[in-house]
Amino acid sequence: MPLGLVELMTNVKIRKMTKLSESFMNDVTQLLKAHRSIRKFTDRAIEDDVINEIITCGQAAATSSNIQATTVIRIRNKDTRATLAELAGGQKYVESAATFLMFCADLQRPQKACEMQGGDFSEGMTEHFIIASTDVALMAQNCVIAAESLGLGICYIGGVRNNPQQVSDLLGLPDQVYPLFGLCLGYPDQSPEIKPRLPLSVVLKEETYQSENDVADIKEYDSQVSEYYKTRSRGRKDSSWTEEMKVLVGKESRPHMRDFLRKRGFLMK
Amino acid sequence: MPLGLVELMTNVKIRKMTKLSESFMNDVTQLLKAHRSIRKFTDRAIEDDVINEIITCGQAAATSSNIQATTVIRIRNKDTRATLAELAGGQKYVESAATFLMFCADLQRPQKACEMQGGDFSEGMTEHFIIASTDVALMAQNCVIAAESLGLGICYIGGVRNNPQQVSDLLGLPDQVYPLFGLCLGYPDQSPEIKPRLPLSVVLKEETYQSENDVADIKEYDSQVSEYYKTRSRGRKDSSWTEEMKVLVGKESRPHMRDFLRKRGFLMK
Repeated sequence: MPLGLVELMTNVKIRKMTKLSESFMNDVTQLLKAHRSIRKFTDRAIEDDVINEIITCGQAAATSSNIQATTVIRIRNKDTRATLAELAGGQKYVESAATFLMFCADLQRPQKACEMQGGDFSEGMTEHFIIASTDVALMAQNCVIAAESLGLGICYIGGVRNNPQQVSDLLGLPDQVYPLFGLCLGYPDQSPEIKPRLPLSVVLKEETYQSENDVADIKEYDSQVSEYYKTRSRGRKDSSWTEEMKVLVGKESRPHMRDFLRKRGFLMK
Repeated sequence: MPLGLVELMTNVKIRKMTKLSESFMNDVTQLLKAHRSIRKFTDRAIEDDVINEIITCGQAAATSSNIQATTVIRIRNKDTRATLAELAGGQKYVESAATFLMFCADLQRPQKACEMQGGDFSEGMTEHFIIASTDVALMAQNCVIAAESLGLGICYIGGVRNNPQQVSDLLGLPDQVYPLFGLCLGYPDQSPEIKPRLPLSVVLKEETYQSENDVADIKEYDSQVSEYYKTRSRGRKDSSWTEEMKVLVGKESRPHMRDFLRKRGFLMK
């Protein structure tokens, strides 16, 4: 049972350290840098207390104007999980993961709070959509770090946006609430390689947006990605980052999202 | 110099631990739960290597279909910083923080990659906007955790969306790139209390969206928030969560955002 993260962290702790404080701090950055999506899990369940601790860690993340616009729905029911796996594009691990959480952007709760104070909710603001969606992502990433620190593996499921209306109906989401992504959690039963990222020079700019060297850097990165896929697939997959991007942004992507969101009360003005 | 996080972590390490591995894991969740925004920093600079490590940790976060849609701009120039502080609504710490990073959602880079492969970029998809914005938030939160583990304090600056066009002009952002938020980083020179969050029962639901008990829970939370503000302001500030929400969503919020984004090539379909 290859528990990569646990091994990593155990090794780090066994190591003799002269400067304890610096070493501990490096352990957090090592944990962050050790992330890879896990799609194969052992049968081991996750205790409710662990999930509660993970969500509590999520809530501690920064939140815009204290809006706390995230609602998480934990789905245990096997039929619901099977349906969600199907709606997300046939991702079996949505069904098989020990825990599945749906992360929703929720403006209904602030609306209710506003109305409890006699206010009128200003519906459909693009800015509120941005605040709410960002809030969800910040909280979810805290949950992910907490989970990984506890030896769990995770996989984000953006595929819930393949069929957002059906997902919303299934989970009884009211207007002003939409499913941004799901999260599979479980104890890892695989240890995939860490995927290489774009060079730092491409993503971190100084003073202004400068992209003169990006093409050269991207070409170099393409070779790395290509090598990564070849190694991982034992020669069967040959793709590069630019090829992946052509597939992703070279065509319409989930073209139903705009109408769906407007129908649910988002992005109207 | 009240370095709350450093103290916390030092205490944790000094403590004698019998079960090392569990304790370390708890240290990460303790770090996450110890978060509060820092708006007052010492004069101590942050070394370039530390910033590079923070950004590298950020890049390790999950990214939708490997799009890596985040571009970070580090602003050192004092005049630019002063202008940004003003554009963000007069937030002086944008100027005084040791480091200021602008986190931008960047679809120009995937567009370029797509075109390097002879593809045609599909402009203005709502789904691509969601992917890109979520990517930025996931990466930023990883940066924040890395920074806090290294003893730094942070403050997100959503105020850059007060004047997104001017901010874009100042930083030379091309179309398909927009500033989602800024991030102030520095060594803390204050140690504010941790703000209470909504009860777990409000944000974590089981199986479906159920909100029958939310109003009661929110009322209880209102008392906590009210108490928190009174204590922090020594009685001068008296507000509750529902009052805050009335201010935030009971009126239009940054109503220029929709037109700004559409002008820059986002949210057109």
